[in-house]
Amino acid sequence: MVVKVAINGYGTIGKSVADAVTLQDDMKIVGVSKTRPTFEAQIANSKGFPLYVLAGNEKKFESAGIKIKGTIDDMFKEAEIVVDCTPGDFGDQEKANYTKANLKAIFQGGEDHELTGTSFNALANYKEAWGKQFVRVVSCNTSGLIRTLFPLDRDIGIERVNAVMIRRAVDPRDSKKGPVNAIKPVLEIPSHHGPDVQTVMHNLKISTMAVAVPTTLMHVHSVIVDLKKEVKKEDVLKIWESTPRVMLIDGAKGLPSTAEVMEYARDLGHTRGDFNSIIVWRDGMNVVGKTLYYYQAIHQESDVIPENIDCIRSMMKTEADNTKSIQKTEKTMGIK
Amino acid sequence: MVVKVAINGYGTIGKSVADAVTLQDDMKIVGVSKTRPTFEAQIANSKGFPLYVLAGNEKKFESAGIKIKGTIDDMFKEAEIVVDCTPGDFGDQEKANYTKANLKAIFQGGEDHELTGTSFNALANYKEAWGKQFVRVVSCNTSGLIRTLFPLDRDIGIERVNAVMIRRAVDPRDSKKGPVNAIKPVLEIPSHHGPDVQTVMHNLKISTMAVAVPTTLMHVHSVIVDLKKEVKKEDVLKIWESTPRVMLIDGAKGLPSTAEVMEYARDLGHTRGDFNSIIVWRDGMNVVGKTLYYYQAIHQESDVIPENIDCIRSMMKTEADNTKSIQKTEKTMGIK
Repeated sequence: MVVKVAINGYGTIGKSVADAVTLQDDMKIVGVSKTRPTFEAQIANSKGFPLYVLAGNEKKFESAGIKIKGTIDDMFKEAEIVVDCTPGDFGDQEKANYTKANLKAIFQGGEDHELTGTSFNALANYKEAWGKQFVRVVSCNTSGLIRTLFPLDRDIGIERVNAVMIRRAVDPRDSKKGPVNAIKPVLEIPSHHGPDVQTVMHNLKISTMAVAVPTTLMHVHSVIVDLKKEVKKEDVLKIWESTPRVMLIDGAKGLPSTAEVMEYARDLGHTRGDFNSIIVWRDGMNVVGKTLYYYQAIHQESDVIPENIDCIRSMMKTEADNTKSIQKTEKTMGIK
Repeated sequence: MVVKVAINGYGTIGKSVADAVTLQDDMKIVGVSKTRPTFEAQIANSKGFPLYVLAGNEKKFESAGIKIKGTIDDMFKEAEIVVDCTPGDFGDQEKANYTKANLKAIFQGGEDHELTGTSFNALANYKEAWGKQFVRVVSCNTSGLIRTLFPLDRDIGIERVNAVMIRRAVDPRDSKKGPVNAIKPVLEIPSHHGPDVQTVMHNLKISTMAVAVPTTLMHVHSVIVDLKKEVKKEDVLKIWESTPRVMLIDGAKGLPSTAEVMEYARDLGHTRGDFNSIIVWRDGMNVVGKTLYYYQAIHQESDVIPENIDCIRSMMKTEADNTKSIQKTEKTMGIK
């Protein structure tokens, strides 16, 4: 069975999900949508993705020399599942459209958990999405927290987590907002990240805060974990070494900041210079008594991409074993 | 009694301490030192501070048209106490010089606690510096943590603190190092800040981490405090309202980031545009159960200046009551 996937919103996340779907043998892209005739619409053309546009906007695309296949409603008729990559907070409206078209849909982390009632991480709760009509893949930051915390809670036990998210100002593709030379605390306290982790790890005790800073490359998390028992630093590293989508690096080997980490992704030949894995500094972690300290870097544009692929398999019931889905996604995408 | 103060190292901190000493009626500047004939040496001249230089460098200053009074050894003969504002990590050498000259000396937070055995904060442990020969004023970040944590521990009781320091890359006056567009975790784990707070608040349980980010204006701390009992948000605000050198602000009143906070300092007419007080966002703090969350901003160039003044009074035994010293310093410097 080859699942027919539509991408609603061919932007930062949509583009990468489309490429990742194309790499799989059990799913294919039947269409991508765009509201305006930007350079990304041309990219969709050049990659051969059928392009669907907002009804009424057809002429704008035609006069820009961009080939279109039809309207977004036409695209819905071709698909079994939609990956919604439209800007956040339009979820209710889009959900109504998908319901009307009798489609399954994956939403991204910009939407609230309540929109779908099910939030997703491939390692932590693959089965919760099984056969569902609507599922949300949690945000880049939440995915990052779950990737490193879930295996610790499973193998050691977590008493409590205190984490601070140091967020990039904008994606590298953007130039329109700051902070430019300042630190901007996210005044909503505690930040939404803690409750968001709990939509997947339901019983984790976690407190989070966040600040935005003038960089575009990656987010960094400072995480302080009270473990249920005393362990050695090596025990924690061993767990993460066998955890999918977590990569351990050494600052001392020329990787002191997110700038060098992104260069490393390019040197490794990753598509778009992405890092789908969460980066943990091996020499920036320590265990003192029962307290674990670590830093991790999150490539905001790409860590959730493989999660979307696995989520499709769970919702479409094409693979029951999350380990097999994760491995298949990683092999095809060249992760690790 | 007017205490004779020398400033060894007329740079970022030294300049401001010199100005602050000048504002007091119980102490005066007898000399400031400079190793090279920079613009700051000219500033010392124009302010009328007797300028002393490294022996052997006299001609460099003279040929740059800068008036000098003598060598650093000459300066030591004029003083009763030296405020050491030389670059960090030369403490051992400088301490030997002060010992030889039979001088008292204050070191800054760049030196280790072990250099003096006594670390200082005017509110928390004024009496520990009483009559001592060598005392260290803790760093800007550590002073900031102590300013808000000490009154909470005194009035409510603190079980445990987890804090992350988001550090500016360099001071506004510098241009030579980054990060430029990246986040750089401080890989030493846990960071030195926690143990440094304990040099003043000896029994506080505190875990800290730190990252450097591409901004020059202020540090920001994300602090998560487990209190010993449940209190209301208002109880905490009330404590800080009556705490010296802590200022509560509202993000919603046009102060969302450190950029606007620094503009506020200029609008308030503060010397050099400084903020000697620690800035706490009233609408960026919350209490959930026994857990307190807050953000604070630290003006790295200026928060320790009043501490140096109070430290002189304790070491020289010219004022036994820390509240009186704090108030005198604040009144003369125009704090709050």
